[in-house]
Amino acid sequence: MKASVITIGDEILIGQVLDTNSQWIANKLHVLGVELVETVSISDTQEAIVNGIDHALSVADLIIVTGGLGPTKDDITKYTLVDYFNDELVLHSEVLEDIKARFKKRGIHFSELNKTQAMLPKKATILPNKLGTAAGMWFEENGKIVISLPGVPFEMKGLIDAEVLPRLKKIGGFPSQVYETYVLYGVGESNAADMLSHFENNLPSFIKLAYLPSPGRLRLRLTGVHQDKFLLEKSIQQLGKELMLVFKDESIIQGDLSYVDFLHQYLTEHKETLSVAESCTGGRIASDLTEKSGASTFFLGGVVAYNALLKQNILGVSKNTIAKFSVVSKEVAQEMVLGIQRLTGSKYAIATTGNAGPSTDDTDEEVGVVFIAIATQNQVIVEQFNFGQPREKVVEQAKNKAFEMLSKEILKNQ
Amino acid sequence: MKASVITIGDEILIGQVLDTNSQWIANKLHVLGVELVETVSISDTQEAIVNGIDHALSVADLIIVTGGLGPTKDDITKYTLVDYFNDELVLHSEVLEDIKARFKKRGIHFSELNKTQAMLPKKATILPNKLGTAAGMWFEENGKIVISLPGVPFEMKGLIDAEVLPRLKKIGGFPSQVYETYVLYGVGESNAADMLSHFENNLPSFIKLAYLPSPGRLRLRLTGVHQDKFLLEKSIQQLGKELMLVFKDESIIQGDLSYVDFLHQYLTEHKETLSVAESCTGGRIASDLTEKSGASTFFLGGVVAYNALLKQNILGVSKNTIAKFSVVSKEVAQEMVLGIQRLTGSKYAIATTGNAGPSTDDTDEEVGVVFIAIATQNQVIVEQFNFGQPREKVVEQAKNKAFEMLSKEILKNQ
Repeated sequence: MKASVITIGDEILIGQVLDTNSQWIANKLHVLGVELVETVSISDTQEAIVNGIDHALSVADLIIVTGGLGPTKDDITKYTLVDYFNDELVLHSEVLEDIKARFKKRGIHFSELNKTQAMLPKKATILPNKLGTAAGMWFEENGKIVISLPGVPFEMKGLIDAEVLPRLKKIGGFPSQVYETYVLYGVGESNAADMLSHFENNLPSFIKLAYLPSPGRLRLRLTGVHQDKFLLEKSIQQLGKELMLVFKDESIIQGDLSYVDFLHQYLTEHKETLSVAESCTGGRIASDLTEKSGASTFFLGGVVAYNALLKQNILGVSKNTIAKFSVVSKEVAQEMVLGIQRLTGSKYAIATTGNAGPSTDDTDEEVGVVFIAIATQNQVIVEQFNFGQPREKVVEQAKNKAFEMLSKEILKNQ
Repeated sequence: MKASVITIGDEILIGQVLDTNSQWIANKLHVLGVELVETVSISDTQEAIVNGIDHALSVADLIIVTGGLGPTKDDITKYTLVDYFNDELVLHSEVLEDIKARFKKRGIHFSELNKTQAMLPKKATILPNKLGTAAGMWFEENGKIVISLPGVPFEMKGLIDAEVLPRLKKIGGFPSQVYETYVLYGVGESNAADMLSHFENNLPSFIKLAYLPSPGRLRLRLTGVHQDKFLLEKSIQQLGKELMLVFKDESIIQGDLSYVDFLHQYLTEHKETLSVAESCTGGRIASDLTEKSGASTFFLGGVVAYNALLKQNILGVSKNTIAKFSVVSKEVAQEMVLGIQRLTGSKYAIATTGNAGPSTDDTDEEVGVVFIAIATQNQVIVEQFNFGQPREKVVEQAKNKAFEMLSKEILKNQ
């Protein structure tokens, strides 16, 4: 079964909001074994919707449409679909009672406009929405399925999990789709491809190798599609082993691991601890470290010392050091990292101080300059970087670099 | 001019990565006045690319394609485009020298595979890539433009800014596109639509009103497209005033302001200060507060007290309070917020403590329970919430709630 996901809304096309629905649905379909052939975002006009569905039906058997189901004038998906399928709207009293009950419970006035939310197409299977007033709709015609869902992410997700996936599973017969990712450090894309040329030429037809480069690392992904799940999993596993043998042990990791994932895994396994003192990264390092559960076993905590006084009062950075070298300096980074290590008693510590920009505070360093310090039990390493601009890039790169510096130091001393 | 953006890559279709390129390009085109009619993500197969471009050319005059320009076997965009335009590849010696110089500078081995990066289509205008080895390509045929760019975000962005936008500006003649957003609190989508029905019925044909609901707030967006920029801006300004008069003063704010933006703006204007003590939010509050520049004028800093000992040692939470009420309690939240306020001397402070889950630590409270405390100069307010699961939702909602609580308290006392 081939699928297309269509998200409707001008807010996506003018760049006001980022479409995250498509990726979420893509992932769900992938796990189910449905091959997604396109995701499309279009405007909320009748012409665009009709054109989008026409095209999707020419390349896919299952179309999932999100957005445009609200009660207001700019929401026209339902009316367009009713026209498209030569259908008519009828009152669904169950849905109406449900909406009324929801409004009553929350003490909100029920307006006539809300009643339109219970007017639903006759031919479609109605998918009840437990988290909102816009019901999902499931149309079937000529062996093709068109599903319409609200665009509000948590309502869409609720309907996919509770209504769409169970129905698709019943249809069944999907091939298995499996992928495994390997992360390679210190080898560029073209050199990796040279080294893998023999491996790549001998891949079975149902398995593909993809290269996903990003600054500082290269992800290699093996993807396979096959009706025989057992054969597929075994093949990918075996090929993964062969792939890893092409590279040096320390330069490749199985799994979609980033440095922060590595630190999480390593520190948890070794029962070691970490703390952070952040200035220019403003809490991003702490927030990334605590994104996955289980962080409390290794992450003791951190200080966001955005202000010079906090650097002195909490972290014990000396006033003289700041006066002599300015807050953005190697010396301050060093005192910060030792300060947080002392304060928390952690084995490892990270500190950052820099000018994220766009303007500089009271420092001599230019915008984009960041000092990153890491402390182990025996030493402190401080490096200076210039991450340029814009601000988000400086923060993002400083954070990634800090995780990388600590990971490499840990790996070196293993 | 109508545009279509096509991103190529299986990693998007299996949900492994989130496509952020499309939104970035969408925003640039919007500012320029180019109407984006669709964004499409497709697989990296010749069939999908040809099909995607065929369809895009049927709805748009300008197609921007990203991805699939690397030197490896899975990158086939360039070869597909050469076929598509009946073109041929020729060696661009300038590009070759450039790539060689780049490799030499970075001390990386130059392989034969890299040479293929300098083989470029004869008919296309070559857009030099200063940040990578994949050049951009600009094809023109029958009055339509197809631009191919690398998928690595910073390379794509560099090429759009340095090469694509200046060329498009030269073509010119685009109508102006203007939008303005208003954020409404405490009024649901359908009630807002009822109240706005007269306003909406009298909008000029070139201006549209859109409703963008999200938990706790409703964004209203006026969008217009017109050749006369002055008329358009004036109309939107005037209509915005009328729109705001429909609602009570305190429930609507002009601009795409969230509570964190409000705090940033208010505290900066009033020269007041804020600090935070975070447990379960793990640095997310600090990191959101420092996302925009200028944060250092009001944000003094914060402590991420992930560990109970840190709550005691840095924030001065009493050991007895923790023993008696557990770390996830009203009492601990209160001592945390007073602790950070005292430590930093800030006028306002925020503190969070809770179980983000999926498992609980040493507390009696269930997963999802969060206590949020805010301190002003006269009082401390603590509220208890249950944000359920998953973990990311708990952290996200706790963070938003904290910003909301403080904003409302500040607005109330104005």
